[in-house]
Amino acid sequence: MSLVFNDPCLEETASATPYKLASRTHQLENTIIHIKGQRIGGSALAVIAGPCSIESKTQIDEIAAFIASQGAKFLRGGAFKPRTSPYDFQGLGERGLDYMQQAAERYGLVTVSEIMDSADVPMLSDHVDILQVGARNMQNYSLLKAVGQIKKPVLLKRGFSATYTDVLLSAEYILQAGNADVILCERGIRTFETYTRNTLDLAAIPVFQSLSHLPVLVDPSHGTGRRELVTTMSLAAVAAGASGLMIEVHPEPNQSISDAKQTLSFEMFEQLMKRLSSI
Amino acid sequence: MSLVFNDPCLEETASATPYKLASRTHQLENTIIHIKGQRIGGSALAVIAGPCSIESKTQIDEIAAFIASQGAKFLRGGAFKPRTSPYDFQGLGERGLDYMQQAAERYGLVTVSEIMDSADVPMLSDHVDILQVGARNMQNYSLLKAVGQIKKPVLLKRGFSATYTDVLLSAEYILQAGNADVILCERGIRTFETYTRNTLDLAAIPVFQSLSHLPVLVDPSHGTGRRELVTTMSLAAVAAGASGLMIEVHPEPNQSISDAKQTLSFEMFEQLMKRLSSI
Amino acid sequence: MSLVFNDPCLEETASATPYKLASRTHQLENTIIHIKGQRIGGSALAVIAGPCSIESKTQIDEIAAFIASQGAKFLRGGAFKPRTSPYDFQGLGERGLDYMQQAAERYGLVTVSEIMDSADVPMLSDHVDILQVGARNMQNYSLLKAVGQIKKPVLLKRGFSATYTDVLLSAEYILQAGNADVILCERGIRTFETYTRNTLDLAAIPVFQSLSHLPVLVDPSHGTGRRELVTTMSLAAVAAGASGLMIEVHPEPNQSISDAKQTLSFEMFEQLMKRLSSI
Amino acid sequence: MSLVFNDPCLEETASATPYKLASRTHQLENTIIHIKGQRIGGSALAVIAGPCSIESKTQIDEIAAFIASQGAKFLRGGAFKPRTSPYDFQGLGERGLDYMQQAAERYGLVTVSEIMDSADVPMLSDHVDILQVGARNMQNYSLLKAVGQIKKPVLLKRGFSATYTDVLLSAEYILQAGNADVILCERGIRTFETYTRNTLDLAAIPVFQSLSHLPVLVDPSHGTGRRELVTTMSLAAVAAGASGLMIEVHPEPNQSISDAKQTLSFEMFEQLMKRLSSI
Repeated sequence: MSLVFNDPCLEETASATPYKLASRTHQLENTIIHIKGQRIGGSALAVIAGPCSIESKTQIDEIAAFIASQGAKFLRGGAFKPRTSPYDFQGLGERGLDYMQQAAERYGLVTVSEIMDSADVPMLSDHVDILQVGARNMQNYSLLKAVGQIKKPVLLKRGFSATYTDVLLSAEYILQAGNADVILCERGIRTFETYTRNTLDLAAIPVFQSLSHLPVLVDPSHGTGRRELVTTMSLAAVAAGASGLMIEVHPEPNQSISDAKQTLSFEMFEQLMKRLSSI
Repeated sequence: MSLVFNDPCLEETASATPYKLASRTHQLENTIIHIKGQRIGGSALAVIAGPCSIESKTQIDEIAAFIASQGAKFLRGGAFKPRTSPYDFQGLGERGLDYMQQAAERYGLVTVSEIMDSADVPMLSDHVDILQVGARNMQNYSLLKAVGQIKKPVLLKRGFSATYTDVLLSAEYILQAGNADVILCERGIRTFETYTRNTLDLAAIPVFQSLSHLPVLVDPSHGTGRRELVTTMSLAAVAAGASGLMIEVHPEPNQSISDAKQTLSFEMFEQLMKRLSSI
Repeated sequence: MSLVFNDPCLEETASATPYKLASRTHQLENTIIHIKGQRIGGSALAVIAGPCSIESKTQIDEIAAFIASQGAKFLRGGAFKPRTSPYDFQGLGERGLDYMQQAAERYGLVTVSEIMDSADVPMLSDHVDILQVGARNMQNYSLLKAVGQIKKPVLLKRGFSATYTDVLLSAEYILQAGNADVILCERGIRTFETYTRNTLDLAAIPVFQSLSHLPVLVDPSHGTGRRELVTTMSLAAVAAGASGLMIEVHPEPNQSISDAKQTLSFEMFEQLMKRLSSI
Repeated sequence: MSLVFNDPCLEETASATPYKLASRTHQLENTIIHIKGQRIGGSALAVIAGPCSIESKTQIDEIAAFIASQGAKFLRGGAFKPRTSPYDFQGLGERGLDYMQQAAERYGLVTVSEIMDSADVPMLSDHVDILQVGARNMQNYSLLKAVGQIKKPVLLKRGFSATYTDVLLSAEYILQAGNADVILCERGIRTFETYTRNTLDLAAIPVFQSLSHLPVLVDPSHGTGRRELVTTMSLAAVAAGASGLMIEVHPEPNQSISDAKQTLSFEMFEQLMKRLSSI
């Protein structure tokens, strides 16, 4: 990344940015998130894997065991689901978080789960290691301020139609409220192309890295919406300098309650991890 | 609208929609919102006007007096502002709502203000007649569920990159939680065009009217981002069948704390109201 | 439009434009196109109607007779069709233009047809009154230069993803080559919304009128892709100040070789013309 | 690519495609283009490099010598430039092609240059090895049919707002006219993001490779519009399986007549080639 960062043109741009704490100008060295012995933003690739939704105690335990066996250190699982339709499964709630917490402890994993309401911050903080602010809530400023006041890392996903500046200003809300541990996540933007669920914008990685010191992850599951593209786009994201990946995995993808089409099987996840470790 | 609604092709489409309570199939007749003697969705055009932000007691009183004198029945004003940057003015909060409430009572106006957090629902409900869910929170499902449980109308703005179906599913969250008084508002979508702040999609009006029974307003201030386009796009919105307009007005637009470029002066607003009444 | 045009902010913008001959700064008064006794850009609304494709001598004659009886003065019909697929009907070619020319002469109509290749300019000029450059060829600069050297008006359609500036620079190619009779046409842009074929951007009308002196038409048939929306969006376009409309009409829309879903029946066109004349 | 290609879901999709000759269903094995001893679509990465515009005999000779010394086998250079403004440099024309042809012969390079008009096909074919159809002409069907009748490979760039299907249908025009040697090129699409000139859609690589047998290149220069992003996005494109890259290079990028901001210096190109060869 030194090449990008040394570019005089970009430094000039950075000095005029509307965000401050999030900018490279404010902090030259990369932010590295330390959480339960793991790091995000350092030299190792952080792999966050797990189901879209926590469905049962057995399901999350089985998945946790499997991803840990493959070398992943972070377990994701949704308990409060931001579903476009009120008739879709809305998640198991706190009970689901309990299941995930137990599974994570058993296999030594760090947990990530989505927070949807500022009122839920205390409860989620009790159960989850990294709180995720989803794409639909990227500009829910009450929520950003609330997670800015906790002592846990926040994973901030780019909104469907958020510019790079929008993302960094949302990060600024969290930083400015006192929480320095913000992780950015590119997950695809909305364009006219309908073959893929979203258009994964990998240029976001070097751009965020030049404008900001915050670590950048990529979610190729939501970023493409098609499982057959996840491995290829994961490799491309790593080549573009991503600090980590967020991958949906399920023992029987087609039985997944949500996001079935974009979820990897155990076999596909195993192959992905092998491809990644061979780089 | 009978022409559109009788189209067999559209009825067929409607029958397959993922939303239920929001659909024309579920309710054939138009929903008309009754609030303090005013109506939205009936034959009269509802004009909602006021400043982007409530700035002071004097400011909101002056604007309320003026818009009432021009025939507008609804007063808008932001007290909790969803600002992209944490360093921008965030609003006067409850104090601002007090100012607006007093002004509205003095001039017989119905008030509209934005709600940003489900925790604020009781407080806003005490001060405001119509609660607005803004574009950035259109998919904040906690908030949608919370405003679905109150007895006041909700004005739901289309997200920057929300499809028609997304909007109607967000309305469904509110309806399904028990609140039948939902007003849809087209306010422009994000496209590649940068001359205007957003691209105002007026086809949303007949489309929403054919797929749903809910009233549809248009916000040409945010929809264009340029005050010189507001009057023309207001006339076009009315011609396309909009049930009302949402217009930013300020005695000294260029001194407006927020949205200065898209705010009408009193003189421009007076001309707009004359043009509208001549239709 | 005087309101828009007098805005100091816009004049300032105009002075910095990369186009010259197309700008209001260069020519203050509106360009009015005179062609065979008809005018485009004056006080009367120009209605261009006809089939997507010329299909037979009988078909174009029947349509010409009908639209003339309804008061339309311009007949459109495609003989060289820019079809996305090579397996779709490509048009009748010069034979089709002959049919249209005969029908137009019989009913006193001015003809409009699309030109796709600079090599065809002489041949099309022999048969057609107004040459149309389609959305897909808006940045085919060889074609723009070629139609800039003829003595017939050119109708320039906005590209799927062309900014206002892009459109005016394409117009500039034609003007700069010596042809002053350029007509702009908004026909919808590509966005993430898929319910409509395109998103019709009616703000283009006042924007083009403030930045340029060229007349602006709207094509609600391509702009929506759905016939049930054409009447409503036509009325909105006129309210926004459009100088004319371009409408697809066919005696049996569902039998139309191309664009069936967006084509009006005779009955719908008759109703549209009545609605327009009542304004 | 075998993983992607074996996916049953994709094969099903492929069978329903509107294109035929371009599909994997029609031809199972990858198309490999053979041209003057070089290959595109085989195991080696094809690097096409050179200036945006051919500016002089000296300039193109100096660049050809340099890129050849770095291992590139393909020389690009524009002689007929599709410039958005008629006042921008339009290229040296045939004289420029002469200069490039001489330089290419001296250093054993294969040439690529853009064709803008079907009338120019014979002349360009005399001077250039691979004819490029640019993004703005991707749906210029006259041009596609014309280059479909020659015996030279055609490099087809994706339009600004073309879907995957649109691109493959444009390729189909060329294939169906008799020319089997079509190369696809992803060069970024138009989105709301303005920091980058376009949004480079790297998912296009695995998608095109699964739907079609044609080779896929990536142009990170136009795809980002910023030279500091070109190296990173080149590495990502290769990781995503691209068969080659198209890179703008100039000895003094800031003196380049066109595309200065996105053009690599010799030093940056040398570093890029080293990074690529280390993979």
